[in-house]
Amino acid sequence: MNYRMIGKYIGKILLVGAIFMLPAYGISLYCKEILAARALLVTIITQMILGGILCMSERGPKRGFRAKEGFVCVGLSWIVLSLFGACPFFLSGAIPNYVDALFEIVSGFTTTGASILPEVESLPKSLLYWRSFSHWLGGMGVLVFLLAVSSADERSKGFTMHILRAESPGPKVGKLVPRMKQTAEILYVLYIVLTILNFIFLLLGNMSVFDALCTAFGTAGTGGFGIKNDSIASFSPYIQNVTTVFMLLFGVNFSCYYMLLLRQVKSVFKDEELRMYVGVVCASIALIVWNLRGYYDTLGETIRHAAFQVATIITTTGYATTDFDLWPSFSKAILFCLMIVGACAGSTGGGFKCGRALLVMKSLRRSVRQIVHPGKVEVVRINGRAMEEKVLENTNAYLAAYVLIIIGSFFVISLDGFSMMTNLSAVLACFNNIGPGFEAVGPTCNFSGFSMFSKIILIVDMLAGRLEIFPMLILFSRTTWRK
Amino acid sequence: MNYRMIGKYIGKILLVGAIFMLPAYGISLYCKEILAARALLVTIITQMILGGILCMSERGPKRGFRAKEGFVCVGLSWIVLSLFGACPFFLSGAIPNYVDALFEIVSGFTTTGASILPEVESLPKSLLYWRSFSHWLGGMGVLVFLLAVSSADERSKGFTMHILRAESPGPKVGKLVPRMKQTAEILYVLYIVLTILNFIFLLLGNMSVFDALCTAFGTAGTGGFGIKNDSIASFSPYIQNVTTVFMLLFGVNFSCYYMLLLRQVKSVFKDEELRMYVGVVCASIALIVWNLRGYYDTLGETIRHAAFQVATIITTTGYATTDFDLWPSFSKAILFCLMIVGACAGSTGGGFKCGRALLVMKSLRRSVRQIVHPGKVEVVRINGRAMEEKVLENTNAYLAAYVLIIIGSFFVISLDGFSMMTNLSAVLACFNNIGPGFEAVGPTCNFSGFSMFSKIILIVDMLAGRLEIFPMLILFSRTTWRK
Repeated sequence: MNYRMIGKYIGKILLVGAIFMLPAYGISLYCKEILAARALLVTIITQMILGGILCMSERGPKRGFRAKEGFVCVGLSWIVLSLFGACPFFLSGAIPNYVDALFEIVSGFTTTGASILPEVESLPKSLLYWRSFSHWLGGMGVLVFLLAVSSADERSKGFTMHILRAESPGPKVGKLVPRMKQTAEILYVLYIVLTILNFIFLLLGNMSVFDALCTAFGTAGTGGFGIKNDSIASFSPYIQNVTTVFMLLFGVNFSCYYMLLLRQVKSVFKDEELRMYVGVVCASIALIVWNLRGYYDTLGETIRHAAFQVATIITTTGYATTDFDLWPSFSKAILFCLMIVGACAGSTGGGFKCGRALLVMKSLRRSVRQIVHPGKVEVVRINGRAMEEKVLENTNAYLAAYVLIIIGSFFVISLDGFSMMTNLSAVLACFNNIGPGFEAVGPTCNFSGFSMFSKIILIVDMLAGRLEIFPMLILFSRTTWRK
Repeated sequence: MNYRMIGKYIGKILLVGAIFMLPAYGISLYCKEILAARALLVTIITQMILGGILCMSERGPKRGFRAKEGFVCVGLSWIVLSLFGACPFFLSGAIPNYVDALFEIVSGFTTTGASILPEVESLPKSLLYWRSFSHWLGGMGVLVFLLAVSSADERSKGFTMHILRAESPGPKVGKLVPRMKQTAEILYVLYIVLTILNFIFLLLGNMSVFDALCTAFGTAGTGGFGIKNDSIASFSPYIQNVTTVFMLLFGVNFSCYYMLLLRQVKSVFKDEELRMYVGVVCASIALIVWNLRGYYDTLGETIRHAAFQVATIITTTGYATTDFDLWPSFSKAILFCLMIVGACAGSTGGGFKCGRALLVMKSLRRSVRQIVHPGKVEVVRINGRAMEEKVLENTNAYLAAYVLIIIGSFFVISLDGFSMMTNLSAVLACFNNIGPGFEAVGPTCNFSGFSMFSKIILIVDMLAGRLEIFPMLILFSRTTWRK
């Protein structure tokens, strides 16, 4: 294990974490939130000191960097970042229990948006900001950010590749350009531009600057922490529609936007994953509108709520404009399925990912064909390109891990005695980084009722979901740490 | 497509179906059930005539027999058998709707045990017998029976292999002996001996001959159709315990019994799948007993109910002695997980199968290891034997198909408006050939509330589950029928 390199990167992560906490500290000073200001300052200084020490220490010999170290590095970074990110909530007394505070910030960083707070409006503004900003930071990935800003170093080439591979969502890392650092830069520029656009559109709807900023952060990271107790329900239809559109936009693979910039419009429209994503969204909205006929006053209102809820669930954001837990079974079943499918690979959304679902289905079709024509060799193609067998194998392993983690977590949190659908949807909502589930964790409820033990399980689920399972599996696997 | 061979076999299946209906006809005459007798006679004669015609016709040229034809043959046989098996219920007026009658007999042949009858005690004895006997026939497979009794023909060697492979449960067909016909014979002899043992033990508990016979059929096939309205609840604790033991015995891979006969006791105890099965059963019973403390009067009663319900669910039988839907969440979560795991491969039980779960977990562990040590080549071993990559690939494809079918069916039957847990557990209960689910399809309820459309979906699920998906996928795949 290359402890030297890992230590250095964790140090850098701590420094970045401290810097990103500064705006929240500024807000706390501006709003004269004394407790929050003190908590933020203590956390920032601690992170600075610890980060500085780790960065400067030169422990261990210089060595190469292997894939497993990339995974371990990403897994540890997220855990460390979360442990410190929870401190402002805990130290300021806003969330008196540390596990609760950790749940809240992991929910933030992993862009889940599940909350243990029964009401959020009484939270200090600075902490509300930090809570929403954690979505933005976690959405594209803080290590990807680090790659984008750190100096390119020939020796760390293998390192950057392994990091990007471990932190980026999707079955296969789409390198936009040959160099990893540049890929990370392009991703962040696109991310910032889209976020600013969203922010402007929200301001045009007469939202306050603070509200618009926080809402845009939550939308961009497909997070879903609301700044009002009723999420987005009390905002105007315009704001809701803008949010619907931007949630859907942030659920698209960012490489599509890059291709648009390169004027490769045709290949964007031919992208199979994008087609599936758009198809599923449109079909779901249509079916829900049909199923909800007569439920709302006008057709327009029905379409608005249906589109918003479909967008919020498939992109795994988690905002809500209506209590979809009261909808008829069929509409709920659609949302349940969307929870699992998730957004596109290479977006800020979570879930199993459309691209992966496509691979699983194509690979299944091939298996059937191979039984029918045993002699025939067939490759699975996505967008005309043959997929390596390794990618298919990993996708199948991913499905297996995905199913096992859901079943295992569901089993364990059942000890709390909630209804089966509450437990199942709580696991799906956390593991897929969505936020709200059904019944006792529905859009009008929260996760505060779970025991500490269950919350820790759900925290692990959220991290495993955001990092796409393998970094967590590798971090906790014996083989990794054996000499 | 080798229509000649397929037609011939479907003809044979019809003849076998007619012969197996004769005892029911005898009972109807003995009990003077005029309507049932007439319905049974008409069905028997029709099957005889059609079967005879198909057997005698020599359509098409003589050709080889490929894997796909094995799958198609198995898929079609089960459908044809079910279509005729439903006739006695429908023609006698006992079940006035044909789709309902089909649901009932498919539930029988696939050893599901889900019923659309609100109460069964008023059913004519002959039809009760036919209903329970269908479990016994479906448990080991009617085509396997055909292989066991038909004359060995060198030319049809490939055929028998493909048939056995398509109809037998589990990731890999365990040939007990080199010759397929002999394997089928051994399986049936073991099956008959165990059934008779079960029957005798039930008689010793003062059960009537008819009740003991029907209960033994349901246990042996891991079916679960009760002959009383409250399933097994009103029988004595002795009967319940005997049934628990035999359900668990019929959930064991039959090759273990064969090895016992060959005195290979050691290799039976070392069998990884058996160990997992026994481990899961014991752990589940212990956890449920712990969770249910104080729920029943005595510890003995708690253990009896816990053991019975665990056995009935993991072996996918579906009898019940208590309404487990009223149990606390954790116990229900255990049963929910057992529903998916299922019994051992090569048993009469359904579900995903322990052996397959073992393969999925081992193959996942290998994937994690390969990320950690990319250069290292590792094979997955079960009982010390290296598994072919093809088997692992097929197991992963099976998992994918399994998940997709569950999600798809759940989505479609949600149109009926039942609760989400009702719908999800109804699909799990049918697809895994269990019988009862939770909430509106719990052990004290039945499937009569679903619409015709949903019933047809569930019929397909039951067949797909019993035949382990691929015969159904291949039957309905375009590639199969393309020139």
